Amino acid sequence: MIIDIHGHVSAPPELYVYKANIMAHRGAHGRGKVSVSDDQLIEAVQKPIPTFGGISHLDHLDVAGIDVQLISPRPFHMMHSERPTKLVRWFTEETNNLIARQCEVLPDRFRPVAGLPQYPHENLDDAIAELERCVREMGFVGCVLNSDPTEGEGPQPPGLGDRYWYPLYEKLCELDVPALLHSAGCRSPRETYSLHFIVEETISIAHLMDSSVFNDFPDLKIVVSHGGGAIPYQIGRFQARRIRSQPDRERFEESLRRLYFDTCLYTKDAVESLLRTVGVDRCLFGSEKPGTASAKDPQTGRWMDDIRGLIEDIDWLTENDREAIFTRNAEQVYGLKSKK
Amino acid sequence: MIIDIHGHVSAPPELYVYKANIMAHRGAHGRGKVSVSDDQLIEAVQKPIPTFGGISHLDHLDVAGIDVQLISPRPFHMMHSERPTKLVRWFTEETNNLIARQCEVLPDRFRPVAGLPQYPHENLDDAIAELERCVREMGFVGCVLNSDPTEGEGPQPPGLGDRYWYPLYEKLCELDVPALLHSAGCRSPRETYSLHFIVEETISIAHLMDSSVFNDFPDLKIVVSHGGGAIPYQIGRFQARRIRSQPDRERFEESLRRLYFDTCLYTKDAVESLLRTVGVDRCLFGSEKPGTASAKDPQTGRWMDDIRGLIEDIDWLTENDREAIFTRNAEQVYGLKSKK
Repeated sequence: MIIDIHGHVSAPPELYVYKANIMAHRGAHGRGKVSVSDDQLIEAVQKPIPTFGGISHLDHLDVAGIDVQLISPRPFHMMHSERPTKLVRWFTEETNNLIARQCEVLPDRFRPVAGLPQYPHENLDDAIAELERCVREMGFVGCVLNSDPTEGEGPQPPGLGDRYWYPLYEKLCELDVPALLHSAGCRSPRETYSLHFIVEETISIAHLMDSSVFNDFPDLKIVVSHGGGAIPYQIGRFQARRIRSQPDRERFEESLRRLYFDTCLYTKDAVESLLRTVGVDRCLFGSEKPGTASAKDPQTGRWMDDIRGLIEDIDWLTENDREAIFTRNAEQVYGLKSKK
Repeated sequence: MIIDIHGHVSAPPELYVYKANIMAHRGAHGRGKVSVSDDQLIEAVQKPIPTFGGISHLDHLDVAGIDVQLISPRPFHMMHSERPTKLVRWFTEETNNLIARQCEVLPDRFRPVAGLPQYPHENLDDAIAELERCVREMGFVGCVLNSDPTEGEGPQPPGLGDRYWYPLYEKLCELDVPALLHSAGCRSPRETYSLHFIVEETISIAHLMDSSVFNDFPDLKIVVSHGGGAIPYQIGRFQARRIRSQPDRERFEESLRRLYFDTCLYTKDAVESLLRTVGVDRCLFGSEKPGTASAKDPQTGRWMDDIRGLIEDIDWLTENDREAIFTRNAEQVYGLKSKK
């Protein structure tokens, strides 16, 4: 069974009509809600998506041989930096509700991962409450966590090693679910949201590695999107810093193995480098399909997000390794077997 | 001959006493200047540096077999975000003057690369004037360019693809010298300056690749520090974006080859990945020695910044490849032969 831990919801248009409306009335018309039928939820993943190569969400999964996908909100839509913050909360709750229902009507293909209502300059109370609601009441198996709810505008909250985040880490441990690090939109004119993902992952890992988070929360499960930003490629810089400044601490590469990583990298070279750097046991298959790389490469005719194919092509992986990456690690980290 | 294009000056303490003083009096005592003898300039590179493994700058070059090193200001000292801006200008000029003199007294070992007085919210007139002074009057062979003179505080100037930077690009082309992309300090509590280097390189490359800079300045020579931040590892994401959004434009990996890259990565895996991704002809040997990775790895006994050793260990490189990386590419990009 191939489990893809990094998918985002393909929602009916009603969700984005709702979003556009609350952003227009800024709350003046009240909370409202998204009303869609089960058929509309199914249609949303069955209908061809022009921007993603002209095939449907389910087609994408079938083409890649993905059996089960964990789906969370589309990050670039999450609008954590919007004001008033109740708009963020409303939209996050509606998105999570819709994800829960889509997973209910297609239980063999999807499992739900929650978005959290995060705000740039407030505490994490609403995020924690929504995480608890999603996991306890709707069977969500994890959440996404945005290290930059200012969405590129700054000043950002403290880095992920800071105690600011501890109440959320406590709740994640209590509920025994992982957080997938994944930023949302980006308002900076210098960065696309897609580039900002990479930047935030890089900053987040470095800050976590310098902190005592994994001493304070040895059971905390953090999965870093997109193969860890720049860190596996730039690891020597951080190894040297650790040796120079904290020679008695565990080596940087050991600390790095306290994290998990998805395989959302789009070249074999990069996926191999990730696997070699952090170890097969810390890597979970993730494709983000359909998403940023859902286009066929005209040179090869291959889908650029055929990450399953890239992993199949790595000749030094054993069958046991592939089973860990495609299935077992996800089952363990997300507790999928026990939660079925 | 082994040429290291990424070195930073080891200056006598008088330079930093000068800096501390102007930052304390904020200009009230006037410009002043740094007075050091030739002997002091030589002593600065001959005396052991405790933070860099207890050997001297020249020892570091000798241990690595580096014949000639291009030296620029220590980036984390450049203080581009300080006010009033005249402090930045004074310190930059004094640093460049000192670099010029150190290269004069040790002409076989060092060649000068200029720092530029950049300010967060002003035009580039002072930077351009200082570049011209350094190249025309003192024989500098290039400069460093900081994409974030706010030093992590933001809002940053537009990305490097913006016309804001064009007057500087014009001057670089007119003088026929390259710019080494390298940020300076970092005021963000989330990022060390060393991490900020990586982030800024990542953002800068992505912005340049989306721009028309290399159409408008086909002769512009930009060298990206530290192997290009996250981009070579994350290249698939950008390739896919190009194919999806600009299918008629040249492929992203071709655009990337309009840049040059140094080899300041501290693992063989990363250096190999860089060479495979951008091509041997776009890579210049750089070690940043002595610098961030000047520590011996207790596991191997090897200097962590022995990048020459890493390159020697890559078995698929030909002698001609190594000669290009170690010597020929630097001679061409920096015009070293013609400027001797």
